[in-house]
Amino acid sequence: MKIYDVSMLIEPDMMVYKDNPSKKPVFENTANHSNSVAHETKVSLDVHCGTHIDMPLHMIEEGKTMDTFDFTRLITPCKVFDMTYLENPVITGNDINHLPIEKDDFIIFKTKNSFYDKTKGFEFDYVYVDESAARLLKMLEINGVGIDSLGIERAQANHLTHKLLLEDDIIILEGLELKSIAEGNYELVALPIKLKGTEGSWVRAVLIEK
Amino acid sequence: MKIYDVSMLIEPDMMVYKDNPSKKPVFENTANHSNSVAHETKVSLDVHCGTHIDMPLHMIEEGKTMDTFDFTRLITPCKVFDMTYLENPVITGNDINHLPIEKDDFIIFKTKNSFYDKTKGFEFDYVYVDESAARLLKMLEINGVGIDSLGIERAQANHLTHKLLLEDDIIILEGLELKSIAEGNYELVALPIKLKGTEGSWVRAVLIEK
Repeated sequence: MKIYDVSMLIEPDMMVYKDNPSKKPVFENTANHSNSVAHETKVSLDVHCGTHIDMPLHMIEEGKTMDTFDFTRLITPCKVFDMTYLENPVITGNDINHLPIEKDDFIIFKTKNSFYDKTKGFEFDYVYVDESAARLLKMLEINGVGIDSLGIERAQANHLTHKLLLEDDIIILEGLELKSIAEGNYELVALPIKLKGTEGSWVRAVLIEK
Repeated sequence: MKIYDVSMLIEPDMMVYKDNPSKKPVFENTANHSNSVAHETKVSLDVHCGTHIDMPLHMIEEGKTMDTFDFTRLITPCKVFDMTYLENPVITGNDINHLPIEKDDFIIFKTKNSFYDKTKGFEFDYVYVDESAARLLKMLEINGVGIDSLGIERAQANHLTHKLLLEDDIIILEGLELKSIAEGNYELVALPIKLKGTEGSWVRAVLIEK
């Protein structure tokens, strides 16, 4: 069994969505070995920081939240598709309609995003999933979809990619790091923290090769 | 395959260590469907809030941190021992020296703590693991130990239970909810969030029965 860590490191100067400073994590050291018997930390963290999942409430009024969702769907077989060959920074329905995607699959798109140097700040021209691909995935009734960008869509009107998927409770997993992951079948484990009422959660995502 | 969630719900009024108000999580709703296209939340969370693991740095100067530790040790077979029969609120070496604990085991103690009503605030008289039990577990070279209290020890001088375990990189998993878990063998998954430099992390802990 080989376990691949596909999660972003959470740190104060990490890349956050659109370089918005209010989305940067804040680490507060509340005690340490120079002033106490213990080292203790408090972290202030936007739910969409680093590798995380979006729940329906993120885009759907009264949608399901982190604690009302069947989290066991995040221990699942999954299929990683290598989309790094795409020239345009978008995944469309035409790009994926030949792929072996079936009902209840958890699929992950590896794109050029995984090779972007995150120390440069946010990549505004990132590869995203457009409405036509979202409609296809919705029709196929997949379990969830993961991608190696902080957003599964970019700045489309009405956030249709999110909405089409989330209105059918299809899990969205964002912020994966897939540089060293080959196309193929894995077991995905990406359990969310049990936050009450939130529209998502950070996860430690791993791919297991058996 | 049956998956048991053994994690505390993270919410503003949850039970925290010694009822310390600064340890209560703070949820900030930064956008919602009445004022934005999306619902967004930021959470300020002490690393030792809810179900979490302690890393060596918590009690050992320059000890390992969340991001320098082999986190794959938290996908592991584990043995749950039912200690709810104990009359005194402490697990000693004598209480566990007959148990089938072997090198590299991950063990979990189910105690009366799991039946405490957490809405009453912190249980100061909780069941903990004393120095003699820690010395035995250290000698046995276990992988990790979990318990259903927010602290594996209570208020012992020098925090010896923590120190004896952490100086040998033995994982401590605290804040489990084990009320409905029977003694026996499971697969434990309790992956920590990839926080840089911290002395621990929240986890979503599950026990899998195969």
